[in-house]
Amino acid sequence: MKIVVDSMGGDNGVKEVVRGSIDAVNELGVDIALVGKKDILENELHKNNYHGNKIEIIHADEVIQNDESPAIAIRKKKNSSMVVGLNSLKEGTGDAFISAGNTGALLAGGIFIVKRIKDIERAAIVSIYPTKNGVSILLDAGANVDSKPEYLEQFAIMGSVYCEKVLRIASPKVGLVNVGAEKEKGNILVKEAYNLLENANINFYGNVEARDIPEGIVDVIVCDGFVGNVILKLTEGLGQSIFSTLKEQFAENFSSKLGALLLKSQLKEFKQRFDYREYGGAPLLGLKKPVIKAHGSSDALAFKNAIRQAKIMVEEDVINKIELDINNIEI
Amino acid sequence: MKIVVDSMGGDNGVKEVVRGSIDAVNELGVDIALVGKKDILENELHKNNYHGNKIEIIHADEVIQNDESPAIAIRKKKNSSMVVGLNSLKEGTGDAFISAGNTGALLAGGIFIVKRIKDIERAAIVSIYPTKNGVSILLDAGANVDSKPEYLEQFAIMGSVYCEKVLRIASPKVGLVNVGAEKEKGNILVKEAYNLLENANINFYGNVEARDIPEGIVDVIVCDGFVGNVILKLTEGLGQSIFSTLKEQFAENFSSKLGALLLKSQLKEFKQRFDYREYGGAPLLGLKKPVIKAHGSSDALAFKNAIRQAKIMVEEDVINKIELDINNIEI
Repeated sequence: MKIVVDSMGGDNGVKEVVRGSIDAVNELGVDIALVGKKDILENELHKNNYHGNKIEIIHADEVIQNDESPAIAIRKKKNSSMVVGLNSLKEGTGDAFISAGNTGALLAGGIFIVKRIKDIERAAIVSIYPTKNGVSILLDAGANVDSKPEYLEQFAIMGSVYCEKVLRIASPKVGLVNVGAEKEKGNILVKEAYNLLENANINFYGNVEARDIPEGIVDVIVCDGFVGNVILKLTEGLGQSIFSTLKEQFAENFSSKLGALLLKSQLKEFKQRFDYREYGGAPLLGLKKPVIKAHGSSDALAFKNAIRQAKIMVEEDVINKIELDINNIEI
Repeated sequence: MKIVVDSMGGDNGVKEVVRGSIDAVNELGVDIALVGKKDILENELHKNNYHGNKIEIIHADEVIQNDESPAIAIRKKKNSSMVVGLNSLKEGTGDAFISAGNTGALLAGGIFIVKRIKDIERAAIVSIYPTKNGVSILLDAGANVDSKPEYLEQFAIMGSVYCEKVLRIASPKVGLVNVGAEKEKGNILVKEAYNLLENANINFYGNVEARDIPEGIVDVIVCDGFVGNVILKLTEGLGQSIFSTLKEQFAENFSSKLGALLLKSQLKEFKQRFDYREYGGAPLLGLKKPVIKAHGSSDALAFKNAIRQAKIMVEEDVINKIELDINNIEI
């Protein structure tokens, strides 16, 4: 198995990508194809004393920046690490592709180059959502800000497959984000989606109110991309705001400082719950091959975990299972 | 000035409403009309040794329950404390109405009985949102789950008036909740709303991403009711989830318990940020008279603060100012 990795997309340069790839090769037994500037990558592998044959380099000398328009960048920058990587994936050089670069461009590139699975209407971004009990997944995390009920139904099916195969949760519970628990609540979109989800071949829990999301009462959280983006960014912002306020207050005087010191290990453990690096990246579901968006500020650990995630997606044949489930084909 | 107060809507019975009303009469110099069962209210006033003439009782012997269908309850329960109270407000017995009862019924009753201000398309629920710097207000908090761009424009104007007059923030900054900061981001609704807000007579900040909401970067947060409801409930749920996790971890062993003890005053202060009782209730803006939804579990302090809020709305003539601003009339 070979995972293609964009070495030029992240905020931390090639250093962390290369280290994460070496760790993955050693620990996970996969092959890696690193896409990027050949001389820089060779130099970096050398610095890390890697002389094995499980990492190959695919040369690409352009980079798509974060502020570039996704569709234009994909069309014009044929030699970018992202486009070269996606083409390698399409042509079968590798089994999955990971990039920490421009999310919109990765999505556009995934759709234009790798293409959507037959009968999938829209690809969705899946975010791993840390909860009190472990993790849930949320989709769509922002790819489709104007969704139709049918998209939400497909998100639910794709999310169920991912949850079952990659997170190994049997018969995952699927919840629809809504303003109330009752069936008749909500806007036009979610009311229609409710009817579709009720009749879909999934373990449909019903509506979930946003207050229940952090408790982890469902495994798959379904919503349109606008709402999903609001949920993820608010969770991030509120977490940061709470931490920074506590930090200021804990530094207030001698006894509060001592108190914080005594709680050091608990606070650290707590902070880990919100550490994205532990959870890998955000898979783009609905494409014909596994594509994973790694966090922009991924370090070696985050890259290694994203590679592990890609490996499981390939091993468990998630793409084929999605295609079968979308077309409601029993095997 | 007389504030009409529904004594039968809250989860805590008449006890807290009556105590809050007595405190308000003594501290704020307003008159109160308590709506509810006469004998029970007389008894409760007696128990509290109140024998003044600033609290009158308006008899009503029915209650609208929280699980009743709003429109039907308002139509059928003519003798409910909520309907009697709203009619008293409409007929001029009082200057504002407060209820801790069924939110949907209060909204429906407000629209059917008190009626909307001329040219207001939809009434909105305003929620006070505690931030790192103080408070912002958010509207709509859930009244309009299928909004049009024009509604969002009116929410922005109404929110600006409320913020300026009641929270006394000069030239309040208005932000539109969106998935990105740039003008061209978002779904169809917010893209069109952006254009309207840009040209409205408000201090438009631009788009705000959900991660910036807890920082308090704008004073007025504008969004449709579905998104607003998600933001408020997620904030509540995440706050609770974080507190309960910290609490468990702080009880882990002797040194963590000691640490938590040393941080007691800081943790208390922090918790107060999320204490809704300090902020009064949620005004329903767009109606011809001030109507405030108090939190279902309001205690005496929460009721007193909601009465204070109603008093300021009346004193500052918020309703007239909204009518002028909606019709863009300079005075």
